[in-house]
Amino acid sequence: MKTVITYGTFDMFHVGHLRLFKRMRELGERVIVAVSTDEFNALKGKQAVIPYEERYEIIAALKCVDLIIPETCWEQKVIDIREYDVDVFVMGSDWSGKFDFLLPYCRVVYLPRTLDISTSSLKESIRSPRVAFNV
Amino acid sequence: MKTVITYGTFDMFHVGHLRLFKRMRELGERVIVAVSTDEFNALKGKQAVIPYEERYEIIAALKCVDLIIPETCWEQKVIDIREYDVDVFVMGSDWSGKFDFLLPYCRVVYLPRTLDISTSSLKESIRSPRVAFNV
Repeated sequence: MKTVITYGTFDMFHVGHLRLFKRMRELGERVIVAVSTDEFNALKGKQAVIPYEERYEIIAALKCVDLIIPETCWEQKVIDIREYDVDVFVMGSDWSGKFDFLLPYCRVVYLPRTLDISTSSLKESIRSPRVAFNV
Repeated sequence: MKTVITYGTFDMFHVGHLRLFKRMRELGERVIVAVSTDEFNALKGKQAVIPYEERYEIIAALKCVDLIIPETCWEQKVIDIREYDVDVFVMGSDWSGKFDFLLPYCRVVYLPRTLDISTSSLKESIRSPRVAFNV
């Protein structure tokens, strides 16, 4: 059984997140999602709109995800890969090359974004609906 | 087997939607969600941020939902209740009393909102982050 993992905040859940998880499922039988805690995001200078517990609860309700773990620090990836016997580490292609340091431990795959959707673009379309919808 | 149905747009999917579906599951074994199409929303003078296909895809990915159908007109509820052999019709308590005309056909339950979250409040917090987060 192949295990596939990814990491992220997954704020304001959208179909881009879901399709990433579905594509992970094509790479293996067990899909693990590490969800950044609010405390870790604060360390990174980020603040999610949706609190950790709710981001976690939504991902936990998905058929295509088998296990969710908290992402609490930068250093945990190698530990997680060993602990959960991970075969494939997945990130979006906007991170291309940034996680090649994990190559000694598992396969590293950067998946292209298939959609013109992101949490940032979603926020922008809510802030400027006329620009987003009436053109 | 009891069948439970609800109707809505479910724009910008959040934990309030998810918890509604989970509570429906407590009322029966088969949960049907009727998702308003973009065309029906236009008739109502509403426009969702997220297009129908993506709202549908997210709800279809949930463990707690068994069937999704499109909501395309005001008149379909009685037809759906008969066609899908619905036992319980569920709406949020902000609609209290508005669907009592369905009582001859099935049980009608208005579930209280358990969370201070809605698509509207989510949009507001994105438009005015300082007000929402820094107080």
